[in-house]
Amino acid sequence: MTRPAVLLLSGGLDSTTLLASAKQHSWQVYALTFRYGQRHDVEVARAQAIAADYGVVRHVVADIDLRVFGGSALTSSDIDVPKDRGAEAMADGIPATYVPARNTIFLSYALAWAEVLGARDLFIGVNALDYSGYPDCRPEFITAFEQLANLATKAGTQGGDRFTVHTPLMTMSKANIIALGVSLGVDYGATTSCYDPAADGAACGRCDACQLRKKGFAEARVADPTRYARA
Amino acid sequence: MTRPAVLLLSGGLDSTTLLASAKQHSWQVYALTFRYGQRHDVEVARAQAIAADYGVVRHVVADIDLRVFGGSALTSSDIDVPKDRGAEAMADGIPATYVPARNTIFLSYALAWAEVLGARDLFIGVNALDYSGYPDCRPEFITAFEQLANLATKAGTQGGDRFTVHTPLMTMSKANIIALGVSLGVDYGATTSCYDPAADGAACGRCDACQLRKKGFAEARVADPTRYARA
Repeated sequence: MTRPAVLLLSGGLDSTTLLASAKQHSWQVYALTFRYGQRHDVEVARAQAIAADYGVVRHVVADIDLRVFGGSALTSSDIDVPKDRGAEAMADGIPATYVPARNTIFLSYALAWAEVLGARDLFIGVNALDYSGYPDCRPEFITAFEQLANLATKAGTQGGDRFTVHTPLMTMSKANIIALGVSLGVDYGATTSCYDPAADGAACGRCDACQLRKKGFAEARVADPTRYARA
Repeated sequence: MTRPAVLLLSGGLDSTTLLASAKQHSWQVYALTFRYGQRHDVEVARAQAIAADYGVVRHVVADIDLRVFGGSALTSSDIDVPKDRGAEAMADGIPATYVPARNTIFLSYALAWAEVLGARDLFIGVNALDYSGYPDCRPEFITAFEQLANLATKAGTQGGDRFTVHTPLMTMSKANIIALGVSLGVDYGATTSCYDPAADGAACGRCDACQLRKKGFAEARVADPTRYARA
């Protein structure tokens, strides 16, 4: 039996592993990506290639310009992406790359699409272990969203199946995520994690996302296929 | 003391009364309107005029095309807006004009803006009494969103004031909302409620929104300033 599910796909390491895992478990995947004014919008093109490669049922790229609100290094050219922070600084507090309410907005869109499709399952590649301190990546946030989803919708209020937000990567280390992906045949060279890539798509190697990614490949003892910009 | 608040403004009767009330209570209002592919997008121009009239601090019209998902008579030309349903039919179930997860998406955007502004207060003109059976207009939905907001955000997780979603119209009848608005000097001729207006903006007089509005003016014993299309 296969069931439809809406999966948030950023083109990064985590969400691509998530997609490979969902496909392996025979979900009919509807992939959703956002062009939200992020400075690293190279990830949208990566997501398109990955969605095609995995043969998702449909891939929607939604244009939602979060720059209108500002407030994040990822969407505002006035705020610098932090570099070379090291593990200790990364573990301490919420960084400038936090985008206000981003995952709430992303999941709300996923919920809307799921309701139209008759799907009751959402997939998001959040991770509470090797993460950057974002509040909307924690299990308590996901649980609160599930509760909201079942009150917010026609589907959730008319009985029958309830909405579930699947977060299989939540408690995995980056190294374990990579090991899982390798076992599923994921081509990590096709993914991108960098918050501040060069114009040609090369990763900076120094932002939080690049540091976590490098550390993950090292700990997993897998060769890092990422193309980094020369210093 | 005045505090900043983000207020969802549709250009309709309820949200305009909400704005008048918030201004009277000295809130610094940041108004947020959505162009979401609604067939009644005349309401966006009405919202702009109303926001200017009330001197809000800033008015943002966010472009979010919900037509990409379909599934509602309000965003799909393939689904007709129900007409002449009468009170009994309107009280029975969720109609075709329901837009999947709309208020979840709207409140998520409001939350993002509030976080950037340092505001902790959101205003939405939902109403659980004289409404059309939408699940995302009920008090339990609003409570669930408040819980989500405080888990989703940097603001909500770092102590200090918690987010509040204000819904002063929640338990008021349409007639009472109109009476409140009249006492605050609201010009209801500047607002629009119709789901299916004519090209010149005239209200159809027959959709659920028109019927609820007409009934409200009649019960409030206030002359209805709405310009209806000739039959």
